[in-house]
Order: sequence, then C-alpha cells, then structure tokens
Amino acid sequence: MSYQIPRGCQDILPEQSFAWQSLERTLREFCYLYNYDEIRTPIFEHTNVFKRENDSSDMVNKEMYTFKLENSKTSLTIRPEGTAGVVRSFVENKMYANPDLPVKLYYMGPMARHERPQKGRLRIFNQFGVECLGNKSPYTDVETIALAFSILKALGLQDLKVCLNTLGDDDSRANYRQALKDYFAPYKEELCSDCKRRYEQNPLRILDCKVDKDKECMKHVPKMKDYLNEESKSYFDTVCALLDELEIPYEIDDQLVRGLDYYTHTVFEIVSLNKEMGAQSTVLAGGRYDGLIPYFGGPEAMSGIGWALGMERLLIALEAEGIELGQKPDLDVFVMCLDEEARTYAFKALTELRAYGYRCEMDMLGRGFKGQFKAADRSHAQFALLLGNKEALDQTITIKNLKEKTQETIAREALIGYVDAHMEEEHELHHQEEEE
Amino acid sequence: MSYQIPRGCQDILPEQSFAWQSLERTLREFCYLYNYDEIRTPIFEHTNVFKRENDSSDMVNKEMYTFKLENSKTSLTIRPEGTAGVVRSFVENKMYANPDLPVKLYYMGPMARHERPQKGRLRIFNQFGVECLGNKSPYTDVETIALAFSILKALGLQDLKVCLNTLGDDDSRANYRQALKDYFAPYKEELCSDCKRRYEQNPLRILDCKVDKDKECMKHVPKMKDYLNEESKSYFDTVCALLDELEIPYEIDDQLVRGLDYYTHTVFEIVSLNKEMGAQSTVLAGGRYDGLIPYFGGPEAMSGIGWALGMERLLIALEAEGIELGQKPDLDVFVMCLDEEARTYAFKALTELRAYGYRCEMDMLGRGFKGQFKAADRSHAQFALLLGNKEALDQTITIKNLKEKTQETIAREALIGYVDAHMEEEHELHHQEEEE
Repeated sequence: MSYQIPRGCQDILPEQSFAWQSLERTLREFCYLYNYDEIRTPIFEHTNVFKRENDSSDMVNKEMYTFKLENSKTSLTIRPEGTAGVVRSFVENKMYANPDLPVKLYYMGPMARHERPQKGRLRIFNQFGVECLGNKSPYTDVETIALAFSILKALGLQDLKVCLNTLGDDDSRANYRQALKDYFAPYKEELCSDCKRRYEQNPLRILDCKVDKDKECMKHVPKMKDYLNEESKSYFDTVCALLDELEIPYEIDDQLVRGLDYYTHTVFEIVSLNKEMGAQSTVLAGGRYDGLIPYFGGPEAMSGIGWALGMERLLIALEAEGIELGQKPDLDVFVMCLDEEARTYAFKALTELRAYGYRCEMDMLGRGFKGQFKAADRSHAQFALLLGNKEALDQTITIKNLKEKTQETIAREALIGYVDAHMEEEHELHHQEEEE
Repeated sequence: MSYQIPRGCQDILPEQSFAWQSLERTLREFCYLYNYDEIRTPIFEHTNVFKRENDSSDMVNKEMYTFKLENSKTSLTIRPEGTAGVVRSFVENKMYANPDLPVKLYYMGPMARHERPQKGRLRIFNQFGVECLGNKSPYTDVETIALAFSILKALGLQDLKVCLNTLGDDDSRANYRQALKDYFAPYKEELCSDCKRRYEQNPLRILDCKVDKDKECMKHVPKMKDYLNEESKSYFDTVCALLDELEIPYEIDDQLVRGLDYYTHTVFEIVSLNKEMGAQSTVLAGGRYDGLIPYFGGPEAMSGIGWALGMERLLIALEAEGIELGQKPDLDVFVMCLDEEARTYAFKALTELRAYGYRCEMDMLGRGFKGQFKAADRSHAQFALLLGNKEALDQTITIKNLKEKTQETIAREALIGYVDAHMEEEHELHHQEEEE
C-alpha cells in the first residue's frame, strides 16, 4: 500500500523551512512597526461564515472544502481565506468596543480551496493577511497599501506594480451594476455559463472573467469611474493623492474588481512583472469592505480594509528574482564518539554544550572515524570533539577547529570556556539570530 | 443571524498572541540547539494515513474529522496528530536515504479531534512535536526526553514528573498481550464495552481505560516488565541509566501504555503536578515506534521516536504556575494630528518613523486633543508628536517625551535624529527583540 500526500498539496520540507521562517520573521517585523497584532482563528468555521447570501464568487460556490460529520447536522468548511474568520471573531468578541479603533490584526496559516492544481495554486496553501477594522479613512487605505508595498520591497522584490481601482459605495455600485446589465443585455447569450450567473448575481464580476475577457463585447464596457457619486470619487482621489505623497507608484486599472463580492471603495493588487510568474502574477490583493462587519452582526456602517498574500506564491516570486531567504544554520560543534565505551562520556559533553547555548550534534549511528568525520564536515560545524576511551579515562577533550584545521587536547572541565573563547564571531551571530 | 465559532474551538485573540509567539520562539530555540529542523505537512491527509489497520485507539476510531467532498471518492481526514503525516512525508520524500540519520524534525500547528470539549481539551488545538527518524539507540531516546525536559524547565515549569515505561519489542509485547488475554479472560464480562473491543484488538490499552481503572480486576494485572526479553530489558535499562547520568528525574509507571497503538520500547509522559490541571495533567507525551516507518513503506526495521505537546494545555500549565510569557510591546511613538489640514503632514512623519524602524501609531478617528492624548497614554509610547497647522506651516515637530514629561519643538528634518538620540534603551531592546 502506498501513502501519498493529497493531490494539490505540498509538504514544506526541512530544507525549505528556513526560507519560510525567514519570511515569517519579516512579516512579523513589519506588523510590529505598523502596530498590527496577530489573531489566530480556527482552520474550519461554520459554513455560513464563508458562504454568504448571494455571493457569486467561484471560491465560495465551487472551491470550498465543506463537510458534515456523520450524525451531525453542522456544516463546516475549512477556511478558504482569512478575512471572514477574522471579521467573525472581531464581532463575536466585541472588539469593535475597543476605544482605540481601528483594531489592526494580522494572521497567517493554512487555507484550503478545491481548485485545479497548477504552479502557484495549491489546494492547501498558506496565506498571510492583515485586516484593519473599525474606521474608514483614505489614510487607513493608504497605510495598508504602504505596509504591503514596504514588505514586498524589504523582501527584495523589484518588478512590482500596484494596481488600484475603486468600486465606490453602495449607491455608486448599484448604478454601475445597472449600467453593466443594460450594456450586457444584448450580449448575454455570448457570455460563458459562469458569466450568465454573474449577470444576475453580480455583473461586476463579469469584468474579471478569464473565459470571456477577449470577446468583442468586453471592449466597450462602461467604466466604474463614470458611475461614482461625489463622495466615492472624492474618497478615491484622496487615496491616489496620498499614494503620490508617499511616492508609492501605482496604476489605475478600471477592470480590477477582485474575486470576492464584499469589496467596496478601494481595491488593489500588487503584481510581479517577472516573466516566470506567468498567469499567477498577483502576489498580494485586497480592498475595503463596508458591508462585512455589519453582515456578521457588528455595528452598522463600521468598515474595514485588508489584504492577503499567498506565501507559496510569494516564495516563487522571490525565487524568480533570485532572492534567497534563509538556509540551514551551521552547527557549532559536532561530537565524534570513537569508542562505544566512551559514548556516555561523549553524550554528556554534547548535553552540556547545548545547555550553554551551542548548536550541536553527535553521531548516533556508531559510524567509524571516517564516516563521522564526513558528517562533521557536512554539518559545517566550527569544532569537532574527538572522544574515545583515552579521553574518557583521562577526563580530557580532544577538540579540532574544523575551520582552522588545528587540534588540541584540553581538560574536560575546560570545554565550555574553550568553546566560548574560540567561537568565531560569525557563528555567534548566527546563533543569536536563531535564538530569538 | 448570528455567526459563532464552532463548538470546542477557540480564537487566539490579539492580547493572547504575544504569549503564543513567545512560546514558539522558545520551542524553535531549543530545536535549533538540538539540531531539529521544521517540517510542515498538510492540515488534512488521505484517511488511511491516520486510520491504520487494526488501530484500536479512540482517536482513530471515534474522534476524526473525516470527510469526502461531493462527487469525490477520496476520503480525507483533518490531521488529529502530527506523527503520521511526518512519517508519511519522511517516506514519500525518501528522507531515509539521508547519509546523516537520524533525520530530526519538528512541527507545530493546528490539529482537530471531535471530542467532548472541556478545559484543556479543544476540538481544534495546536500541537508542537518532534520526530527523530532513522536510527534506534537508547541515547536517542534520552536525547529526545532531555529536549522535552529542557524546554519545559526553560519555560519555568516547576512541578514536573517524567513518567516512563517500556512496551518492549514485538516479541515481548506479543507475550505480554497473551498474558493479558489469559488474565482478563475470566473478567471479560465486567469490562466496559470499549475494553471488550480492546481485549480483541489490543489488550494493552485496557490498562489506561478511564472507565475500568478502579475495578477489582485491575489490581493484579500482569506487568509488562515481567514479559520483556533480554534485548528489550537491556535497552530500557540503558535508557534509565542515561537519564540518571543527565540527572533527569523520572518514575517508572507500569501502567503507562499511551493512547496510540504504534508505540514500542520507550514510552513517556511529562505530567504537571499543579492541582489546577485536574484530569488534564499530561503536558507532553511520546514514545518510540519500530513499526511506523515500514508501515508507510519505508525501510524494514527503521525505527523512530517522537513526542508532542498540546500548546493550549501547556499555556494553561504555565498560567497555573503564574508564568507569563509575553505581552504587547509598547509603541515607540504616537502621532497626534491636531488639525485635519495637518493630517497629511502627520501621516508622512508616521511613515518616515516606521521606515526607520520605529513602532508607531497615529490617530485615525479624528479625535480631539484629549481623546488622542489618552490613546497615546494607553499605548505606552515613549514619545508623542503633536502636529497641527502651525507645525505643518513651519515645518516643525512638537515632540513630547511621555515618560519624562518634557516637550520641545524641533525642525521637521531633525525628527529621526532626535528620536534616535532620545529613545530609552529599554525601548530599543524591545524593538530589537521583536524585530527578529
């Protein structure tokens, strides 16, 4: 019998995990600077948290891992995205009563969507996202975009484009929706079957259909900006002006509506222009949502804004630009055991070194000298201890500096002092960084 | 309509997240010292990864979140524990071919079990665990226990007990299993319904039945140690002797069999003796498994050992001993905006401070002076910037040291230099720690 990982899923293997940890440290560092705190919501929620009335998105209608346990009436769904659970928690825990709104939250972790697997699109993937909940101000929109832009820049991404649009407020969007219906009415039969449904449920989403995008009828579609009321227009103008003030480059993209139904006003994506990204070039996306907090039972008219990035895809984008994030740190000391009778002696030296904060390993296979020496070499340890019957009997340590190719024999009790004194600075730094 | 978190689940709220992050940093630090690397496996696997032939455990038979998607024949299960997925990945990715066995892996993240919720027992909980795969040596067993013990000690837990037992090798266990069958045969009707099943499937597990534990027939049960063959006995004696060498205190518990079927040889638990822990006093548990790697298709006779701890329960144990792990770090600077017209001026100062590595916040609600000042106070910021029309016009910054109650007005371009020079050391340290 063979046991395989489920289709479309990926193990993050030990050699890759250092890059993940490094990415997470950077993300946390920026959240620290921007005063975002972490929240962790369950990996599944009641299905109605994600499946909201009249939601037309593919994610909700086609891609969810929804299930009921035997003998249970409760429908549960593994989270396909982070925002809904965070807003559910914000309302359920009455965070809206915080005197210091907005409440600024970040999350990271696994999400699941039952999609057709392809490069940069997994069935279980990891998402990092932020949500800024409880106020509505163009300054907050821009702060949120600035956080996103700063993170991607700090990671080293060069070929970036911020794409921006507004979906306006409810009134503006209702006007636009009607304009789209009027416009598409004569072309309805030409649209794909999904778009026929979208025409009824949410005609805005016809604009980002990948099937219909090159059809003739898509060429003269009415534009959102011509249907914005004064307030929505002025809100968006302020967002653009503030982005200019912060010197964040952006492009306005009339077609940008994003794949989720709950967005209002500002929506944005950050796209990698690197050729290797192909169809999966969006590394980060988000927008404002006026209706979501009230939908979950929070205060009427309380708004939020957020964005999310797929961590696997971001790592692909970094790799495409030749950026390496983190590697397995070298060992400080490799302990070689040269006689089986000396094993306990060696083991206690190993344990003491670790207790003093050194990263160590010891042969546990009973290999010969040559095999152990090769292992010590592969570990890039600065020191190897060579411990046999002689050392155990004399209570000494033979210690070899593998970088400087020197070797001496010291008293057993001098071990920690010796390593403290002779450890290269580079190793110490590595050690401190990892210890945090 | 109301939206609630699923029964038996818990949000980790922002104010709690600092303790989680601190715990995770400590766990990673020890893995660094002990040369364990991280692995991340999917949150669900094919059901057969967890549901192994003849497995008698409650976890596998009663508590799994197992589901099939509509129109799919694939049975999937949200992981109820970490070991099976890690071993599946170890074999699938041929890690057993690594020249430096054992491969030492750690994992952390959410797991799900459909249990009756109670204190310290959630349906979605977070587990941290280690697996040391590919060799078999009492030194490795003790290294693994030493890692566990060191972590709990470093976190500050005092009232700890290591409970230890051996289940021996296959031969020893077959002998013992027969002895238990012979012994329980006359009492079979007295046993609970679960134990009747266990009698057939795995009579060892009768020993940790919570229903039957006080029955008369449990008082004179044969003991595993009387059925160990020489090899198993000698292996366990070495484990005990090495624990003595490392001065790790332990107790041998004949009844300890653990709730998973795959264990062989050494099994152990670390228990908190703190009274508040009640029935959920086990904070960490693990053991050796000779059969699991071959079961998943890996090399015959390749063994592993591991342990896991429930992170929620560990946090309860820490709290019971009055140990606090981490709190929200103070802000460095709070930016007050005193005139709406000065908002862009204030926003740019905020953005610059963040770019220079300061943790900052700004009023985004348009509150009055008093409201903003209270917010600055609550944030424990060292500095407040007071920015109004006058400052914007003069290109100055009024900066208040909230700790020393002093205030001065400086040139706009002197801001970063001023904060660099006047930041208290404590703040800088906090900042560095968080930045890692």
